[in-house]
Formats: sequence, C-alpha cells, structure tokens
Amino acid sequence: MQNPQLNQHGELQHLLTTEGLPKAVIHHILDTAASFVNIGNREVKKVPLMRGKSVFNLFFENSTRTRTTFEIASKRLSADVINLNISASSTSKGESLLDTIDNLAAMHADMFVVRHAQSGAPYLIARHLRETGQNHVHVVNAGDGRHAHPTQGLLDMYTIRHYKKDFSQLRVAIVGDILHSRVARSDIHALTTLGVPEVRAIGPRTLLPGGLEQMGVRVFTDMNEGLKDVDVIITLRLQNERMSGALLPSAQEFFKSYGLTPERLALAKPDAIVMHPGPMNRGVEIDSAVADGPQAVILPQVTFGIAVRMAVMSILAGTQTA
Amino acid sequence: MQNPQLNQHGELQHLLTTEGLPKAVIHHILDTAASFVNIGNREVKKVPLMRGKSVFNLFFENSTRTRTTFEIASKRLSADVINLNISASSTSKGESLLDTIDNLAAMHADMFVVRHAQSGAPYLIARHLRETGQNHVHVVNAGDGRHAHPTQGLLDMYTIRHYKKDFSQLRVAIVGDILHSRVARSDIHALTTLGVPEVRAIGPRTLLPGGLEQMGVRVFTDMNEGLKDVDVIITLRLQNERMSGALLPSAQEFFKSYGLTPERLALAKPDAIVMHPGPMNRGVEIDSAVADGPQAVILPQVTFGIAVRMAVMSILAGTQTA
Amino acid sequence: MQNPQLNQHGELQHLLTTEGLPKAVIHHILDTAASFVNIGNREVKKVPLMRGKSVFNLFFENSTRTRTTFEIASKRLSADVINLNISASSTSKGESLLDTIDNLAAMHADMFVVRHAQSGAPYLIARHLRETGQNHVHVVNAGDGRHAHPTQGLLDMYTIRHYKKDFSQLRVAIVGDILHSRVARSDIHALTTLGVPEVRAIGPRTLLPGGLEQMGVRVFTDMNEGLKDVDVIITLRLQNERMSGALLPSAQEFFKSYGLTPERLALAKPDAIVMHPGPMNRGVEIDSAVADGPQAVILPQVTFGIAVRMAVMSILAGTQTA
Repeated sequence: MQNPQLNQHGELQHLLTTEGLPKAVIHHILDTAASFVNIGNREVKKVPLMRGKSVFNLFFENSTRTRTTFEIASKRLSADVINLNISASSTSKGESLLDTIDNLAAMHADMFVVRHAQSGAPYLIARHLRETGQNHVHVVNAGDGRHAHPTQGLLDMYTIRHYKKDFSQLRVAIVGDILHSRVARSDIHALTTLGVPEVRAIGPRTLLPGGLEQMGVRVFTDMNEGLKDVDVIITLRLQNERMSGALLPSAQEFFKSYGLTPERLALAKPDAIVMHPGPMNRGVEIDSAVADGPQAVILPQVTFGIAVRMAVMSILAGTQTA
Repeated sequence: MQNPQLNQHGELQHLLTTEGLPKAVIHHILDTAASFVNIGNREVKKVPLMRGKSVFNLFFENSTRTRTTFEIASKRLSADVINLNISASSTSKGESLLDTIDNLAAMHADMFVVRHAQSGAPYLIARHLRETGQNHVHVVNAGDGRHAHPTQGLLDMYTIRHYKKDFSQLRVAIVGDILHSRVARSDIHALTTLGVPEVRAIGPRTLLPGGLEQMGVRVFTDMNEGLKDVDVIITLRLQNERMSGALLPSAQEFFKSYGLTPERLALAKPDAIVMHPGPMNRGVEIDSAVADGPQAVILPQVTFGIAVRMAVMSILAGTQTA
Repeated sequence: MQNPQLNQHGELQHLLTTEGLPKAVIHHILDTAASFVNIGNREVKKVPLMRGKSVFNLFFENSTRTRTTFEIASKRLSADVINLNISASSTSKGESLLDTIDNLAAMHADMFVVRHAQSGAPYLIARHLRETGQNHVHVVNAGDGRHAHPTQGLLDMYTIRHYKKDFSQLRVAIVGDILHSRVARSDIHALTTLGVPEVRAIGPRTLLPGGLEQMGVRVFTDMNEGLKDVDVIITLRLQNERMSGALLPSAQEFFKSYGLTPERLALAKPDAIVMHPGPMNRGVEIDSAVADGPQAVILPQVTFGIAVRMAVMSILAGTQTA
C-alpha cells in the first residue's frame, strides 16, 4: 500500500499529515524553509519559484489566520492565489465536493490548500485526483477536523530545531486540550519520527484521548510533574466552545490547574522554550507574563510558519508529474 | 441604431449578449481563445497582455464559480483584479448604481465584469459609459437575470467547434428549464448566427418560453423524440428554487421525463457530445453514468471557458478608444 | 513629546491624522501625488516602488469603497495586498487586537492600512509597534471613529490645490453634519496648516460640534450666509443613521435648509468648486443638478484619491527604519 502523500519516485506529491512522513522528507522541508526565512527581511520579499502557478485556497471552514499565512506564502513565491470560502452547506454531499474539485482542476489549478471541518477531506480529494489521473494538482492539508494540521506541525519542528538544534536529547511537553487538537496529533507524529526520546502529554483526563501511551507518549494529569525538566513546552489553545461544555469546569478552573504561569515554567529546564499555535487565550492556557516573556518563541513560530509553507508549496510545485 | 457592443469601427467595445453579435466577431473570439487553450498547460501560465490594467469584478449577485473563472482569466492575462461583492440592496436605485460606476471609472478602471440579478443592468452601465464619454472602460456581462450569459454561450460554441469542427451540418438539442435559462438564450442566438441548421429545445411545457419557434427553434416536449439523431446535447441546470415550485411536480418526476440517462443518450448520434454549464444536479437533469461517461465534455467546457474569457478580455482591452 | 507620526529624522513613519502634520510634509505628499496622477492614463498603470512589500488592509469596520481605493493604490505600486475583514466582535479586547498586530508583523508585514470604528485604534497600533521596536511596519489610518480620515483630508487638499493653486486667499465652506464627520475634522486641520485664511462650518446647531471657533473656524447656521463668496464648498455625507434620529427632523427638512441647490451655489464665487467625499445622497445634502454640474469636482477627487494614497504609501515605504 503506497503512502498517499508520495509519488512513485518517493517525492512529496501531497502534504496531508505528518503521520508516516519520512524523516528525510521532513528534514528536506525544514532545510528548504531555512533558505526562505531571511527572504522576509529583504527589500523585495519575493522569489519567482511559482510564477504563473495557480493556488486555490479552498476553505470549507473559515480561518482568516491560516488562510492569510498561505496567501502570503503563495504571493512571496509569485504564485497567483484564488481564495474560495465555500460554506460546508453548499457542498454537503461528497459527490458535489469532488465535482467542485474537478471543475477547479479543469481550470488548470496547480495546488489546492484545503481546510475542512471533516477529518479526511483532503485525503478524499487527493485520492480522487490520483484515481482520475490529475497528477498535476497538489493538495496541502491546512487543517481537517480533529485529524491533522501538518504545516503547523512542521513549523513547530522548525522552531524546535532552530532553538534546540538536536532532537535526539529532548523532552517535549504538550499541554492542554490534546483530545480535540489536530496540532497535538501532528506534533506527536513529527516529534516521534524525528527521534525525540520523550514526548509528554499534560491535561485533564477529559481532554486526553485514548491511545497516547501506544504512540509512545507519557501522559500526565498533574501539570507540575509533567513540566519537570522539559526542554520544550507546546501550549495548546483551549477552544472557546469547550470552555462552557461538560468536559471542563470553567476557564478559570482550567487556568488554575493547567495555565502556564511563570512559577510553573520554572519547573522546566532554565532554557526551555514556550510555544503556542495561536491565537492565544491569555489567562486561560497561558499567563501573559509567560506569553510576553523571554522564553516565549510564539512570534518566531509565526515567522517560521511563512517560510515552512513556502517550502512545502515550492517542493510540491517542483515534484515531477508521475 | 448602433449595436451597443461595437464601436464606430465595428470593433467589440463591450460584450453584453450573443444576440446580434456578428459571426466574424464570434469566430475572432474563438480563434483568439484557441491561442490561449494551451497556456494552461505551460510551466508559466501567464501572458502580459493586460499588465497594469485594472479589472473590477462587480458581482451584484453572488456567484463564486463564475467570479473565479474571470479572476483566473484576468490573472493569466497579468491584469490586476479587484473583487467587489455588492449586495443588491445597497444599490437598489439605478442612480446609485451609476454613481458607483462613475466612481470606479474615476479610479481608472479598464474593465467591469458585471453580474446582476436584473436583466439589462450591464446594458445600463454600458450606455451610461458611452453617454458620459468614458470609452476607456469596457463591460463584460457575466450573467444578467434571465437575459444573457454571453461568455457561457461563447465557450459552448468553442466546445462545439472543437469537437464537431463545422457548424453547418449540426443538430443541437438544449434540454430542460429553457424558460429561466440565460445560458439557453445565449446559446440559441450564437448557434443561429453560426449557421447551425437545426436547434431543438426539449422540456416540459411549463419550462418552455413562448417565441421559440419564431427564433427558428424546433420545440419538443417528448425527450425521446427530441434527442433523436442529434450531434450535441446541452443539458441545463434545474435551479433548486424551481424544483419545489408550482412549475414542476418534483425533481424525481423531472428526472423520469427529462433526465439524461445512458438509454436516452443512445437515441442521439453515436458520436454525440454531452454538455452542461455546471454545477450539475446529478440524478436530476443528468445521470452520473452520462456525466462521467465518454461522451461528456463538461470538464473540457470549463477549461475552454478560461481561454474564451481570456480572449474576450484581451480583445476588449485592445480595442481602440473611439 | 514626539509627534507619533514622525520618526526621529522628522520623516513620516505613520499617517494617523492631518492634525499637527507639518506643512512641508503635506506639500511633499501632494507633490508626490502629482507625479502619480498621470499613471492612471498610461497603458501600464504600475510602478515598481513597492514590489515585494506586503500591505495588509485591516478593516475592523466594513468599507468596500475605501478598501478598494487602497487596494488599487497598492497594486499600482506593485505591492502584494492582503485584505482582512476583521469583525470588531472577534477582537473586542485591546489586548487581542495587539496580538493580531504582532502576528501580522511577524509575517513581515510592511504596512497596515487600518479602518476602525473606535477613535484612536490606529494610534494604539502605532504606539505598540514603536514600543516593541517593530519600526519596519507603517500604519495608515483609513478612518477611525469620528476622529480622523487623513487620506481623505489630503486628497481634498490635492483637489483644492489643483483647482485653486494658492491656499492663502481662499474661503472654504464645509457644509452639513460636522459633528460626526472625521472628514470635516481632517479637512479643517489641513486647511489651517496650509494657511487658508477663512474656513467656515455650516450646519444645523445639532450637527455642529463645540470648539470650532477655537480652531479658527467661522460657524454659520444659515446656509445662504455661509456660502456667500466662498471659493470651495465641501459637502458632507449625511449618514443614514442620523436621518431618522433625534438630531434631525428629516432628510427632506435637511435638504430644505442645507441641501446644495443651484440657487444656493450661485451665492458662492462664480468659479467656486463643489466637493463631496462620497457616496452622495442625492436630494439630501446635494441636488443632482449640482452633483452633475460644471462646478462639481467630485469624480476628480476620486481620481486624485488614488494618487494621494499611492503617494502616502510610497513615502512611508521609503522611510528609513529609525
């Protein structure tokens, strides 16, 4: 059974998930991103790598923030970008989704950046393109349901590599609502592939999914224990819709037990970095003193995120049509 | 009385309708489109024909699909595109519509691509531009009410010419809701001008407008009779809002009598092509076996549609200011 | 206390208001705009002054019209433009607004064009950028609450200079809802700085703010008296929401007392020009005979507006990072 992300030459055909993404492919993406990081500081922040290519941002679920990062990355690669906000209702049937895809492919699209509330939608699209021989179109998963958000996972890896150099000695803690987090899932797969010896998940029992131990993750429900001696802390956003739900007492309660405060941060290694995928709920999952403190690398994550998306897109655009 | 689409040199000043569009002008558009069809397959899908020109997509009626085709066509011609979704309510008075037009023209617009729920709106704009001497601005009708959708009509002609070469021996059947279809109207005018000897309209009596016979169209209410020995079948979309209305029993009833199934398609010539302007209602006006079958040219229509829109826009942009 | 718009070299770092903007800076903007006015008529309407720069249109308040002018100005300067319509609700807390700003700055933004319903929001952003050392990002106020709309003020100055050459001999009347008008405020500050000896405000007592006399403005509640012998009439838009409020009897009553009719226009100097920031309420603040008459310069204002915005943006983009 072939990896649906790779073509027959083992090259990246689509980016759907960090799960099963070969270590060499991840490092190739991060190395390519490194060459783009400084473009942002140049007078002219553009390279012509995707000139004349048509990138479609297909956002079946609204996300101004993520859409913006892909739009900027595309424009800095000189691609033409078309933004399509497609309400899920108008394409409720899978058949109709694939008709939309076929139509856009017939307009000679080169890339679909897909955000969808349903897990698996980007896979469905990638499989359909393969089955219909439309291999000139590449798919980038920009977040599907609770499943995966691979460019966020990769930018997190870029950030860790930037500050810590070597993955092989690290303790990384992911804190908060692991259950609903596609970011957590994408991070765990990438960290494991890159050889991080200890990945920890910290959160209340109601927000921890089953099966973490089988993925090699150490589970903690006590924040203080979990943070002890870690090198990297990835704080997750607590989704607003969870806060008033049955899974949690309240935002204040959550902060009391799992909010990252300066006192708790002091339990980690002195040079530990603090990450967050944004947007932050200050005073819920993270204290402002930490978010704006010297150990936070949250804004560099954003900067690296543009470079990582440029890397993924330019690598896909350069892949041979199988 | 001058044709409102042509300037005093007989050149295309606006594209408002296929009605009265001279045969030579239609062929010039199709020939120009042919030169663009292969651009979509090139590494760099852009030509600099409209570099620095400003195209405004004025969509008073929402249509993501049509807007996207014009946006892509504009970008492949290197134009700058501004998308304006203007709710009909904010410009309910004609006066205020023309103030909007004057304002955008004063920003040195080069082209307005206009979609409007009211028939005649693009004419009103074109007339106003002429009366106020603003001949540097060209209007493309992207669909007005039930009246016309000329770029769809022209891409249908391109598709027919591509597969059938010669218009002078053809039997073309248009099937479904002719009454509410601007596509049907635009196709009929173009087919007649191009010398198609037999144009047929097939549908239930409630969805057939009066006056078809006077336009030279043969009318059929029996699907099997109407399809006999035709070379081209143009299936129309059954608008959702009609399906539950008084004009029709139900979508299932419609499919039973007028849905294009493989059995019915077999009544046409063996090499007949099947067209549809999209988006399709599978199982209502067309069976999936036909939509995805070897005689369907529905996706090539989309590809040709980009080239035809590039042709129209580049011809208009090159028209001398009278 | 440093002027928040200027850097330590006295160069324009942000454009927040016309208040306190030095006369030399205003003339520099108008002179630069003059060099752009004719670009609109050229075959290729682009200059590469901002190639590769990223401009973010941050519209916390919806305004298609103003957003469009900045989008065109950016594209004619060859910048990459990202439009963000951010509903005020999602960023109700100032803290969260600044997190958004930090995120976009981390994407290597070069310019924020900010429209906000709250007076002072662009200042807040500019101050935050200075305090956090992010001096590579420039802010343009595209309208904040009732406070300021400096690019509209500057394009009004451009228009007056274009038609009247010299500011030092002029009588300028601003007519209508001065109380709620950021345009009036921006005009008054600029006119005063440029040395206009007589600025008049005309309107009903309920729509005249206090403190006009202290700003050097002559106040009139009688339209006929106020228009006498003026060189320039700036008619303001009567906001729809005021018309049915307690401040005014009705739109018809307003027109009877303060609508600019041909008869009233005859009271001004014979060569007086009539301006309006748009969109006009014909028959409320202005009669159509005047709006479309020979003394109206309302559409040239729009044309000059693009050039003035190009001037402001290109000057800011060329400012040295302090």
